[in-house]
Amino acid sequence: MAANEASQQPTKVVDIHTHMYPPSYIDILTSRSTIPLVRTFASSPDPRLILLQAEVPSLEGAEASSKPPGRPLTKHYSSLTQKIHFMDTHNIDISVISLANPWLDFLKPFESGSIAESVNTEFSSMCASHPGRLFFFGTLPLTAPLATIEASVTHLKTLKYCRGVILGTSGLGNGLDDPNLRPIFHALADAGLPIFLHPHYGLPNEVWGPRASQEYGHVLPLALGFPMETTIAVARMYLAGVFDAVPALRMILAHSGGTLPFLAGRIESCVLHDGHLMREAKVHATRRTVWEVLRSQIYLDAVIYSEVGLKSAIEASGGADRLMFGTDHPFFPPLGTDEDGEWESVGLNAEAVNKALGKASQEAAGVMGGNAIRVLKLYDE
Amino acid sequence: MAANEASQQPTKVVDIHTHMYPPSYIDILTSRSTIPLVRTFASSPDPRLILLQAEVPSLEGAEASSKPPGRPLTKHYSSLTQKIHFMDTHNIDISVISLANPWLDFLKPFESGSIAESVNTEFSSMCASHPGRLFFFGTLPLTAPLATIEASVTHLKTLKYCRGVILGTSGLGNGLDDPNLRPIFHALADAGLPIFLHPHYGLPNEVWGPRASQEYGHVLPLALGFPMETTIAVARMYLAGVFDAVPALRMILAHSGGTLPFLAGRIESCVLHDGHLMREAKVHATRRTVWEVLRSQIYLDAVIYSEVGLKSAIEASGGADRLMFGTDHPFFPPLGTDEDGEWESVGLNAEAVNKALGKASQEAAGVMGGNAIRVLKLYDE
Repeated sequence: MAANEASQQPTKVVDIHTHMYPPSYIDILTSRSTIPLVRTFASSPDPRLILLQAEVPSLEGAEASSKPPGRPLTKHYSSLTQKIHFMDTHNIDISVISLANPWLDFLKPFESGSIAESVNTEFSSMCASHPGRLFFFGTLPLTAPLATIEASVTHLKTLKYCRGVILGTSGLGNGLDDPNLRPIFHALADAGLPIFLHPHYGLPNEVWGPRASQEYGHVLPLALGFPMETTIAVARMYLAGVFDAVPALRMILAHSGGTLPFLAGRIESCVLHDGHLMREAKVHATRRTVWEVLRSQIYLDAVIYSEVGLKSAIEASGGADRLMFGTDHPFFPPLGTDEDGEWESVGLNAEAVNKALGKASQEAAGVMGGNAIRVLKLYDE
Repeated sequence: MAANEASQQPTKVVDIHTHMYPPSYIDILTSRSTIPLVRTFASSPDPRLILLQAEVPSLEGAEASSKPPGRPLTKHYSSLTQKIHFMDTHNIDISVISLANPWLDFLKPFESGSIAESVNTEFSSMCASHPGRLFFFGTLPLTAPLATIEASVTHLKTLKYCRGVILGTSGLGNGLDDPNLRPIFHALADAGLPIFLHPHYGLPNEVWGPRASQEYGHVLPLALGFPMETTIAVARMYLAGVFDAVPALRMILAHSGGTLPFLAGRIESCVLHDGHLMREAKVHATRRTVWEVLRSQIYLDAVIYSEVGLKSAIEASGGADRLMFGTDHPFFPPLGTDEDGEWESVGLNAEAVNKALGKASQEAAGVMGGNAIRVLKLYDE
């Protein structure tokens, strides 16, 4: 099913969760000898993209194995032509593209500033080559000194098609509740650049148990580790008071908030019943609840693959106007069918919008594109 | 608000998630020198119950600290009189009591069989002392040899008021997807004893970051660690094919399934898009989806503290008839008010049922008690 069947209205379809590894970034991955990297294996026709330690217990073992590790690095990851083809195939009018994980998190401090500048400029040029159809979330050089990160925010402000930044959960290395990261949140809020919060690190491998790596493919780290990581990161920000300290900060949470919509009530109850938190007045009388923060500073993408999940995300958000459609392209390609055709993963999410909100409803049209155009100001002015 | 205001019908209110540490178990905890344990500290009038390593970085440090670790061991944990008083206060007609975490998971293999027998007999006697008002979930000696565990299931079958077993996520030490645990699942299914799956171990401390233990109280491990642990455990069972291999197995998941209702769509999509899983035929053509398993072999308690979460749990379950009210007593007592009065934590969950299903609806009455009476056969025959 094509994405814009969701509304059957003349409103545009916008994909806010769609990644690329531009050619210069692929070059960096190819030059590396530790994960993340791109490497060629005798057992695979395509080079392999290996992002997570969980995907491959040992690179040496993988060389000898008949089963290549990671995933094939197809043209879907790096080709802008392919991105536009994917958009056309699924009737997506506008994409807000972003560098995929792990972004620049692994770079050495001295190099990350200049690489961030070059990657962001490259994304900017890609957008300029398809005016009105492409915008982007920039990338910050988080391993660089603070002044370099702040300079990167300043650079992003000058780039016409930049509409925010994509951020992982590690921050400067100690998470997003790290007080040392606070100046960056202020800089982003002042620049009017929302954060698209995206997981990468998942959970420690031990939680998946001894059978997972051999028997369950990538399912547990991707299906559970990713959304749990996002939830933990945003809960830590909430408990550290980041949202109160930076009231102009806006976050867009990947995968419909991880599990935040479902667990918001439990978080709220655990805060209310925690003697330590209440006694120490870390939680002030004027504390805003998790629900209040969700409904004022947080937006969610609609990448949750079910009507049940999407409805929950909408209700937790106090309405459908804080949800925005996404595809997670080029991840989750169809198996065994033509990757140039329609992707089931896209259809699952568009169908969830239809079912949750009614195919021809204004709310569905909002989630499919109107909300993103309004929130991210997706027009060429 | 009293719990039975939820229905305003003459149907009974049943609490299926309510724990006790009977006196003999408190004696065991008091005799221990490593966590879990009960210990007296100069800084606290009550003995302290310390269940989780995350609650106290060092016992020695805690001795010297002015802030006692863990939680006060009040009469709510061990007194049957107090349990009945709590039930009366909240208009709960029937409670299905269970030993609280970490159950018998820490016992030495040679002692756990006899301690299980004694604890289960003690629960049985408590129920017999209030016929019709109390039933219980038994406890298995999981550190004992398999034959001892099987003998414990056989013993539970003879106990008139036993209606299932409460189980943690560690199984025999390698999780619930461990093939060596399969005979126990078969024995429980054959005995018609459902498993009440309950978290204890949470997630590795490192995921909460460097600030959590000092600044966020117990919020992250309890609000996020517990439900994530439950979700991971049941997803591992699903991927290992346990539900297909033991079709008569019935599970009741604590805290409305952890996060399973919200993430079921993502799990399903990740399975569908996993080349390894699909190629290796670990997932058969006849595979039942996560949704199908949820709607046939899984029940959820209604301990989720929000209308948003409860609605999601109901929809994921295909209807309200698989949900059962619970309180999590004696955990989450009210702060700063009389613990003998009404508990806000109870009211939050009863209110969620009212809001999600309508105060006077048959569905609400089902969740508040009717479903538990039907599913667990809570009558004295």
